Amino acid sequence: MAEGIKIIKGNIVFTPSFGQLEVFENSFILIEGKTVKGIYRELPAEYTHMAVTDYQNALIIPGFVDLHFHAPQFANRGLGLDLELLPWLERYTFPEEAKYTNIAYAQAVYKQVVTELWKWGTTRVACFGTIHRAATAKLLELLALAGLGGYVGKVNMDRNSPSSLIETTAQSLADTEDYIKATIDRYELVKPIITPRFVPTCSPELMTGIAKLAQKYNLPVQSHLSENAGEIAWVKELHPECPNYAGVYHRFGLFGQQPTIMAHCIHNDDAEIALMAQSKVYVAHCPYSNNNLASGIAPIRKYLDNGIAVGLGSDVAGGHEVSIARVMTMAVQVSKLKWLATDKSEKFFTIPEVFYLATKGGGSFFGKVGSFEAGYEFDALVIDDSSLEVSACNQYSVEDRLSRFIYIGDYHNIVARYVAGAKIEQPQL
Amino acid sequence: MAEGIKIIKGNIVFTPSFGQLEVFENSFILIEGKTVKGIYRELPAEYTHMAVTDYQNALIIPGFVDLHFHAPQFANRGLGLDLELLPWLERYTFPEEAKYTNIAYAQAVYKQVVTELWKWGTTRVACFGTIHRAATAKLLELLALAGLGGYVGKVNMDRNSPSSLIETTAQSLADTEDYIKATIDRYELVKPIITPRFVPTCSPELMTGIAKLAQKYNLPVQSHLSENAGEIAWVKELHPECPNYAGVYHRFGLFGQQPTIMAHCIHNDDAEIALMAQSKVYVAHCPYSNNNLASGIAPIRKYLDNGIAVGLGSDVAGGHEVSIARVMTMAVQVSKLKWLATDKSEKFFTIPEVFYLATKGGGSFFGKVGSFEAGYEFDALVIDDSSLEVSACNQYSVEDRLSRFIYIGDYHNIVARYVAGAKIEQPQL
Repeated sequence: MAEGIKIIKGNIVFTPSFGQLEVFENSFILIEGKTVKGIYRELPAEYTHMAVTDYQNALIIPGFVDLHFHAPQFANRGLGLDLELLPWLERYTFPEEAKYTNIAYAQAVYKQVVTELWKWGTTRVACFGTIHRAATAKLLELLALAGLGGYVGKVNMDRNSPSSLIETTAQSLADTEDYIKATIDRYELVKPIITPRFVPTCSPELMTGIAKLAQKYNLPVQSHLSENAGEIAWVKELHPECPNYAGVYHRFGLFGQQPTIMAHCIHNDDAEIALMAQSKVYVAHCPYSNNNLASGIAPIRKYLDNGIAVGLGSDVAGGHEVSIARVMTMAVQVSKLKWLATDKSEKFFTIPEVFYLATKGGGSFFGKVGSFEAGYEFDALVIDDSSLEVSACNQYSVEDRLSRFIYIGDYHNIVARYVAGAKIEQPQL
Repeated sequence: MAEGIKIIKGNIVFTPSFGQLEVFENSFILIEGKTVKGIYRELPAEYTHMAVTDYQNALIIPGFVDLHFHAPQFANRGLGLDLELLPWLERYTFPEEAKYTNIAYAQAVYKQVVTELWKWGTTRVACFGTIHRAATAKLLELLALAGLGGYVGKVNMDRNSPSSLIETTAQSLADTEDYIKATIDRYELVKPIITPRFVPTCSPELMTGIAKLAQKYNLPVQSHLSENAGEIAWVKELHPECPNYAGVYHRFGLFGQQPTIMAHCIHNDDAEIALMAQSKVYVAHCPYSNNNLASGIAPIRKYLDNGIAVGLGSDVAGGHEVSIARVMTMAVQVSKLKWLATDKSEKFFTIPEVFYLATKGGGSFFGKVGSFEAGYEFDALVIDDSSLEVSACNQYSVEDRLSRFIYIGDYHNIVARYVAGAKIEQPQL
C-alpha cells in the first residue's frame, strides 16, 4: 500500500459541474498525499485493513473558496455602511489601511483574520493586503502557518490616493518585485498575486509595469471592476482613450493576459462581457458588499451563460460576513431580486448552483481545487449539523441537511477542516 | 425606598424616535417593578445605598421585537427556498403545519422555538400557530414559562387549504373562541390574537365571525397582505367586489378595526396605503422572507413617510433567521437596493432607523415597549461585544459598537435578557 493514504468516511457531497450535486451517503473518500483518489460506497478490498477516519453521520463537503477578501479592512466590518464606495474608501478604508505601515499592528490584526478564515471554513482565499510590502508578506506567512491556501497581493496605488497611502510609481514597482521575490517560492499553498487596487489609483505606467511583472514571474492578477456608477464615471474621465472600464485593464496588460480575478462586475456592458469571456477573466461575486455599499446586483447568471467563470467573495469589509456559506445564501437571495427585476428572465440560483460557485467555481482559479473528483486536491469541511436538527421532526435528506447548514449553520457546525490533504487545526499564531 | 427597585449600569443605547439614537455611556437605569423610572449619568443621592447590577463596559439595549413569526414552520428553516409563496406553502408549509394536530410533536418543536427566540434576544413576538387549538395554547404556555412576551394566534383556514389543514367555518369559529377563553386571562405577557392566515384561506363568513370575536374580546389581529403577485391576483379573483386586497380585510372588519399587523405589504397601491395609514395598521417588514420567496422589496420608507407604523419580522420559516439583528441588517441592505431601484428617491435606512424599527417601532404594538423612556416596560439585552473587538485596533465608539454587534454579532454576545423588568434565564422547558 502506498504511503500517505487517508481514508475518510461520511456523507460526501460536492458539485462536479454547475448545478449538479453529487451525494454519496455513508461512503469512503480515499486521499493519496494531497489529492483525492476516489470515492467508494464500498471500500475496495485492498484498503479494508487500513484505518478509516469515520465521521459517521456528518457531511463532508469541499472547503469554501473566497475569491475576494481585503484582510486589512477586517477591523472595519460593520462600520460606515451608510456610504457608497468612493466616500466609504476615503472615510473608512484608506485611514485603516494606512495603519499597516506598522508591522506590529498588521501582525496583530492578521492573526485574527487568519483565525477567522479558518473558523468559517474558508480553505482558499484571494486576498488583498495593503501597499505595504512587509505587512503583506506577514499575512502570507500567517496564512501558510495556518495551513490555508491563498493568493495574497501587495496593493499598488500611485495616484488619487491619500498622502498616507500612496506610492511613487517607481517605489510601487520596486516594492512589488521585492515582495514577489521574497514570497514566490517560500510557501507551497500561499503565493503572491499582482494587485492593482483599481484603475483610479493606478497610473498607466504603474499598470504597464506590474503587468510586466505578472508576465515575468507568471503570476495571476486581481482587481476591481465596475462596482459603482461614480467609480465608472471616474474611470471614463481618466481614460477617454479606452472604450470602457475593462478595456483600461486590458490595454495595460491586466485583463486576462495572466489568470485574472475581477471583483464585483456589476455594471459591465456587452462589449466588456465579451472581453471578459474572451480573456477568461474570473468574476468574484460579492453580494454582501454590493448590498452594503448600495452598488447593485451583478448579472451573474448572464456571465455564466456567456461562459465566464464565477466564484464568490466575502469582500470583507465592504461585506461584513467572513462566512462563505452566508455569501452563498445572499447570492441566492439577490439572484431572486434580479429575477424579479429582469421580468423573470435571469433565472435565480439554486443551492447546488451557489454551492458550485463557492467551491469548484472559485476553486478552479487555484488549480484542481473545490471538488472531490479524482485528482483534485482534498480541501474539505466536516459538518456536524446535529445542532440544527429539530427534535421529533422527520429526518432530513442529505440535500436538505446541506441546504440547512448553508442557511442556518455556523462555524460551530464545522468540526474538521482539510486543505490539500492535510487536516488543519485551529491556528496557533 | 420603594420595593422592587432595580438599578442597572452600563452603556445605555436606545431610540426614542425614528432615527434618533440616545447614548448614555456608563450610566444607570432605574427600574421600578416592570417599568423604567429614569436614566442617570450620576445616580441621585437617594439611590446610592442600593445594590447596582454593573454590566461595566457592556451595551444595554432594548429587547428585540419580532412582529411576524410562524412557530410551526421552525423545522422548515432553510428548506425549499427555490419556490415562490404559493407552491412553497403547498409543498413545505402546509404538510409541516398539519403535523401540529399531534400535541406531543407540537410541544417538542415549540420548546426549541421558544429557546431559540430567547437565545437570539427576541423579547416580544407576534406569532402564528396553526389551526390547532391545543398546540397553539401550548405555544402560549411555553412562551409564558420562558418569561417572554407575545401575541399568539390560532390560525383560521376554511377554504383553499389541503384536507389535512382545513376547518369548517363553524369549527374554526368555535375553536377560536374556546382558544380565546382558555388563554386571554391566563398569562400576563402572552395573549391571544385573531389570526386569519390570509384572504385566500378564509371565507367571508369566517372573516366576519373572527372580526366579531376580535371586537367581543378586544383582541388585536394579524395576517398577511400583498406578499406575492400570484397571491394578489388570486385575491382579486376571489373578491371582485373589493377594490383591492387590503379592502377585503377592511370589508370584513379585520383591517384596523382592532390593532392590526399586516405582514409583508410589498405590492400595495396608493389606495391601500391610504387605508393602511387611516386604519393605523402596522406593517411587519420581513426582508429575509421577501428575498427567500422572491417576493420583492417592500416600500418601507414610503410607509413611514405616510405615517404608517412599521416593525420588523423574521417570518420564520419564509425567513430562515430568528435573529432580529440580522433582520435589521437585511432591512438596511434591501433598502439600498430599493434606493437604487427608485432612482435614489426612497432613501435607504441607517442603523439608528432600523434599530428603532426593531425595538420601539414594533414594540409599540405591545404597549409601552421597546424604549428606555420613563414609563416603558423594561425589556433589555445586555451585550458583551468584547469578542468582536480587534486587538491593537483603536477603540470603537458606542455607536460603532452597536453597529458592529448588529452586523457581525450573534447570540454569544447577549449575556443577559430582561422582559418587563424581570431577568429571564435560559428556559427550562
